Amino acid sequence: MKHPSFWKMLTVAACMALLGCLQAQELQGHVSIILLGATGDLARKYLWQGLFQLYLDEAGKGHSFSFHGAALTDPAQGERLMAKALETLSCPQDLAPGRCAELKDQFLRLSQYRQLKTEADYSALSRDIEAQVQREGLREDGRIFYFSVPPFAYADIARSINSSCRPGPGAWLRVVLEKPFGRDHRSAQQLATELGGFFQEKEMYRVDHYLGKQAVAQILPFRDQNRQALDRLWNRHHVERVEIVMKETVDAEGRTSFYEEYGVIRDVLQNHLTEMLTLVAMELPHNVSSAEAVLQHKLRVFRALRELQRGSAVVGQYQAYSAQVRGELQRPESFQSLTPTFAGVLIHIDSLRWEGVPFILMSGKALDERVGYVRVLFKNQACCVQSEPRWGAGQSQCLPRQVVFYVGHGALGSPAVLVSRSLFRPSLPSSSWQELPAQPGLHLFGRPLSDYYAYSPVRERDAYATLIAHIFHGRKDAFITTENLLASWLFWTPLLDSLAHEAPRLYPGGAENGHLLDFEFSGSQVTFSQRQPEQLVPGPGSAPMPSDFQVLRATYRENPLISAWPDELISKLASDIETTAVRAVRRFGEFHLALSGGSSPVALFQQLAQGHYSFPWAHTHLWLVDERCVPLSDPESNFQGLQAHLLQHIRVPHYNIHPMPVQLRRRLCAEEDQGARLYAEEIAALVTNSSFDLVLLGMGTDGHTASLFPESPAGLEGEQLVVMTRSPSRPHHRMSLSLPLINRAKRVAVLVMGRLKREITLLVSRVGREPRKWPISGVLPSSGQLVWYMDYEAFLG
Amino acid sequence: MKHPSFWKMLTVAACMALLGCLQAQELQGHVSIILLGATGDLARKYLWQGLFQLYLDEAGKGHSFSFHGAALTDPAQGERLMAKALETLSCPQDLAPGRCAELKDQFLRLSQYRQLKTEADYSALSRDIEAQVQREGLREDGRIFYFSVPPFAYADIARSINSSCRPGPGAWLRVVLEKPFGRDHRSAQQLATELGGFFQEKEMYRVDHYLGKQAVAQILPFRDQNRQALDRLWNRHHVERVEIVMKETVDAEGRTSFYEEYGVIRDVLQNHLTEMLTLVAMELPHNVSSAEAVLQHKLRVFRALRELQRGSAVVGQYQAYSAQVRGELQRPESFQSLTPTFAGVLIHIDSLRWEGVPFILMSGKALDERVGYVRVLFKNQACCVQSEPRWGAGQSQCLPRQVVFYVGHGALGSPAVLVSRSLFRPSLPSSSWQELPAQPGLHLFGRPLSDYYAYSPVRERDAYATLIAHIFHGRKDAFITTENLLASWLFWTPLLDSLAHEAPRLYPGGAENGHLLDFEFSGSQVTFSQRQPEQLVPGPGSAPMPSDFQVLRATYRENPLISAWPDELISKLASDIETTAVRAVRRFGEFHLALSGGSSPVALFQQLAQGHYSFPWAHTHLWLVDERCVPLSDPESNFQGLQAHLLQHIRVPHYNIHPMPVQLRRRLCAEEDQGARLYAEEIAALVTNSSFDLVLLGMGTDGHTASLFPESPAGLEGEQLVVMTRSPSRPHHRMSLSLPLINRAKRVAVLVMGRLKREITLLVSRVGREPRKWPISGVLPSSGQLVWYMDYEAFLG
Repeated sequence: MKHPSFWKMLTVAACMALLGCLQAQELQGHVSIILLGATGDLARKYLWQGLFQLYLDEAGKGHSFSFHGAALTDPAQGERLMAKALETLSCPQDLAPGRCAELKDQFLRLSQYRQLKTEADYSALSRDIEAQVQREGLREDGRIFYFSVPPFAYADIARSINSSCRPGPGAWLRVVLEKPFGRDHRSAQQLATELGGFFQEKEMYRVDHYLGKQAVAQILPFRDQNRQALDRLWNRHHVERVEIVMKETVDAEGRTSFYEEYGVIRDVLQNHLTEMLTLVAMELPHNVSSAEAVLQHKLRVFRALRELQRGSAVVGQYQAYSAQVRGELQRPESFQSLTPTFAGVLIHIDSLRWEGVPFILMSGKALDERVGYVRVLFKNQACCVQSEPRWGAGQSQCLPRQVVFYVGHGALGSPAVLVSRSLFRPSLPSSSWQELPAQPGLHLFGRPLSDYYAYSPVRERDAYATLIAHIFHGRKDAFITTENLLASWLFWTPLLDSLAHEAPRLYPGGAENGHLLDFEFSGSQVTFSQRQPEQLVPGPGSAPMPSDFQVLRATYRENPLISAWPDELISKLASDIETTAVRAVRRFGEFHLALSGGSSPVALFQQLAQGHYSFPWAHTHLWLVDERCVPLSDPESNFQGLQAHLLQHIRVPHYNIHPMPVQLRRRLCAEEDQGARLYAEEIAALVTNSSFDLVLLGMGTDGHTASLFPESPAGLEGEQLVVMTRSPSRPHHRMSLSLPLINRAKRVAVLVMGRLKREITLLVSRVGREPRKWPISGVLPSSGQLVWYMDYEAFLG
Repeated sequence: MKHPSFWKMLTVAACMALLGCLQAQELQGHVSIILLGATGDLARKYLWQGLFQLYLDEAGKGHSFSFHGAALTDPAQGERLMAKALETLSCPQDLAPGRCAELKDQFLRLSQYRQLKTEADYSALSRDIEAQVQREGLREDGRIFYFSVPPFAYADIARSINSSCRPGPGAWLRVVLEKPFGRDHRSAQQLATELGGFFQEKEMYRVDHYLGKQAVAQILPFRDQNRQALDRLWNRHHVERVEIVMKETVDAEGRTSFYEEYGVIRDVLQNHLTEMLTLVAMELPHNVSSAEAVLQHKLRVFRALRELQRGSAVVGQYQAYSAQVRGELQRPESFQSLTPTFAGVLIHIDSLRWEGVPFILMSGKALDERVGYVRVLFKNQACCVQSEPRWGAGQSQCLPRQVVFYVGHGALGSPAVLVSRSLFRPSLPSSSWQELPAQPGLHLFGRPLSDYYAYSPVRERDAYATLIAHIFHGRKDAFITTENLLASWLFWTPLLDSLAHEAPRLYPGGAENGHLLDFEFSGSQVTFSQRQPEQLVPGPGSAPMPSDFQVLRATYRENPLISAWPDELISKLASDIETTAVRAVRRFGEFHLALSGGSSPVALFQQLAQGHYSFPWAHTHLWLVDERCVPLSDPESNFQGLQAHLLQHIRVPHYNIHPMPVQLRRRLCAEEDQGARLYAEEIAALVTNSSFDLVLLGMGTDGHTASLFPESPAGLEGEQLVVMTRSPSRPHHRMSLSLPLINRAKRVAVLVMGRLKREITLLVSRVGREPRKWPISGVLPSSGQLVWYMDYEAFLG
């Protein structure tokens, strides 16, 4: 290539002649753009074109440019490959061919290849830029390093840039990073820390190219410009569900070395779909183009996301995948991959705005069509009095009402924003969005296109071109900050961990998938709608189904024992509690229930909260069996567990809830405050004879129950109803109902679950009444009934 | 007519010859059925046919019958009219015509007309029955009196039956009553009391003929027989809405003298549709044919119904109605009726099973089609991964899923039970229900018939025939008990009262109604979807719209005053509170809000509960400004209002809610318990400097605020933060924040609404600081901000 200063002069001349550079007389700012990985796939397909677009947009507006394609390849071959990549550059349709050729020519002259391998190469690059700037009488404005390289190369390049290729004072540095940014929270954190050692946060631009897609980039502006109409609608009262979808027809062939490491959740859901979710769900900032405000509102969405569990997702894998991996990665014939190529995930947001609204994220390869969209489906809250044939096309309030941000492809073939006509007429910037022409016969999301106000971009623009323009202008709102990234990984990592050893459902691919991948949700659980067909890869340890067994009735310590699989046991206990409650309320008008904390009752609480519609909660008093000496708001407090898993979901009057007064006068369990006495008085005042209708206990591996511990005499006998005790484990101080109080109950249920309890279960079955050694053995209601509930693992080992 | 004993002999002979009466040798039981109003409309159309059907079903099964048509008409004319009514009796299609003629002949011979006018007539009837029974060697089993007469005649007839026509010991009496059973709770109660003076509850059979319709009668058995499938589905987690609909094409012409008195809500919603609602919504009794269990479960539904308000309904009237009334009832030309002929009502059930599920009741005359149904529409909780054209007919989980009890008429033309194929295959008794044949092209509820498992009765049976059989067999579960009736009126009466002076929307009738009657709901409010077109009957006092005005800012007592229409005022106050809360939480991590009770804040609480998604509730502490000395669970307690309208809908941690301790040691506000001191200590412990972030006050017409009353010095000055006071109105004893404590707040808002406050508002605007006369005048935060919020009525009168 010729010497750059020569091209520079030509450019300036061209610029003055053709574009009228008003500021040509001033000291012109120079920006160097270094594309690392200049001959790679991404660069060839999108990035060079994006840089050319930047040049088309910005040439003659006060900056001079140089574009440095860089790679590890030696100069001769690198230049050849780069020239090839640049051959296909194209102009927008509305630019005259002659003008296009001219500008392309200019761009090529400003672009050169260089090998960047060693620290010295970076120093040389820096010196060359400085020399050019000085020589041409320019002012250096900044340097953009675009990392289009695999992540393992990041650290070295970053180090070299930082040490040898930073611009001088007054000029900025921007580094552009492409995913993957780690594969879980730990590795992302590590990568971020590493990069943070070389660059400031404001210097880094992490690309999620979905944020550059026109329909996605329109989400916040759309919400902003249609605030008035959406204000009423954009919440749990009106939204039925939100679907965030990216379907692909291609599979992973040729890319399995990457894909096998990541899978669909890391490849698509953790980034693209999650970003779209935050754009839909965030509280709308006053200024939607303030990067800082957008970031803060996004982070608030992340904080409100309900934790994912194994049951929050269904995963699949197209049948040919494992064979492709075996072929491409030389794996043995027996190798079966567990990497999902399809995932459907149900997300709940615990905010007042979105509580209860399902957000469904779905993506997969080898599906029946290529399409991406965010679909907000509104509840039908209308009643149409006329019979359906008279409803009238598109206008009826009873037809589905939706807002769709259509990313592209699919039946429509272009980006679009769709709003049901029965919803409202949206406002979109008319300079960039126009109404779609009618397409008779085209149906989208269950309705003909004519049912929608439908808009598409005046000019389709590639996502990378958009993002490169943002980078050049220093607009950070469409990029992923470190905080944002880590918040997302923090959310996704537990699910990824829990799926690591699960076999995905196999699917044939394409239209043949039929209903095989359809899934349903109920509460927080997602399941495939169809039962697993012929299991091709058996999952590890598929346990017998609970329903294969009967609830076992026997005796334990001469009292009734109910034993079953965990789910059945919890169901049985919950329904026994309900029966007891209904009877008590019928006879006495109220039901006094004392509950233990810990982990075993959580499933019970959830069962009671969700399934028991006739439970007389309005007449139920809830008491605590024991409490730790921590504030009630502490996550360790038993009350917190009760609140999170039960109280939030039912309607018990405030004054029927009786937390233990472990905190009084801002002190925890201070003797002078006499919390135990207060609680005993409260019980005596409200519970007839201080005899609870039902006390739910657990049993520790050391034989403790409530907070009554071995070798600690407090609460085992005597007059005191409520006592302070000391636990061998932290926090040591506890408040507990005493054995004599427990034994006054009309009914006591002891719930024992899990293999870890096997030993103590066996031991306690053999001992007499020795509460000092095993407090649980002192539980013997004087005139009430004691029932043991044990799962098979605790009872049979 | 010939002498009955002659017919009797004939009957016995026929019976022995043709049906083989096995027990003919025993003493046969005799049942007399007296149809009062035997020549009226209902009798002619349904009741005689029903009695004939009873005879067809029961003849020869061990009873003998006599049928007495009765009316006020003299015997000659009565006999003629009755004979005419009996002419059209018909047999089921599967009975041979010859056999039919024979049985009809028998029935006619057992039927005779008699005039029943005076007490003596009833005595004579009774004597005749006894004589017949004795003469023919029968045993009297019982008497059924069917009241097919206007309700004003009930009392006299009932008195006569009770005093002169009861059967002897050992035989039963059953009286069958037809609606209307009153026109509101008071009149229904009165009628019930009256009837209760003559008959025992068990003797009365109140007919709601909808309960005899096959699809309606099938609701409980269907729920029972499909318990397993429905158990999971029949609740708020899965049901999107329930529609209970009866549409008519006919109008009220010819019946306006009745209709003008009742209207569509009393005529259809209060009885038929409400009964269907209870059948769908009740917890399923173990034994669905136990009348007592069904009744108790129904009553529980009534208790859980959320109170209706004016906004719970939309009403309409077909345009020709008023003219018809003028014509038929000789009203002046200017007369405009306010009687609704169309109503759409939204009902919510506050139970764990149904909370949040809209039950929509809709009925009207002069609509576009005749049809009745209960439609349970399920939520779409599935995600279909394939694009829609590949979903496959009827099977996709993503198509609407519903269970419909189709009463009759409409597109289907017969009763039916429909269950979406994607839901489950229902079990129906095969002896009485069969699968419907395919009807290509027929769409129902948005889907082709082929999408449903669809069943219709093997034999269609008229509702009255069914109910008459029940009455004969003493089965009471399909009848309306007094308790049931009064519970229903108790529910409907407030709505009827609030609609009494509202002008219904006029509609042209039939298909021309277009979308005019379509309505929508949001929260508990229902509104027509279209704005009122040309108002033909202007409603009384249509006020200017709030949005026509600006929020007015001014000063009052030298502090800022915000004045607006009520809705806007509440919105403004709610958003000011939110702003204050967000700021406080941002600065201090918590927000302390003290709230007043009473009625004005209710709208504020609702607004805060429903619209403020970013309110930092998790960090908000709620305190009470004042409280009445009643238990917190008392409906009079301020805390109850807070709980019902705010706490139930948001998520404030239990320990952040601070009710006033008016009840301690089971005593109310006992001096020794020092509740006020306790509350002051709690405030001092948790609120920095005991300075609330915001105190919300009201102002009474006597100038009181909080529970600080004129001419009562407690709490006006001094050190005490919380005081006991005495109110001039009941309950007299109160607990209240003191003026000094209120004046320590960072912000105080005083909300004053309604015309009644005009006088005190004016007065207080002129006085200085005279808290002993007008406690409100002592509100002057020492370093905080005081803002007045007044609606125009309070401020401008």
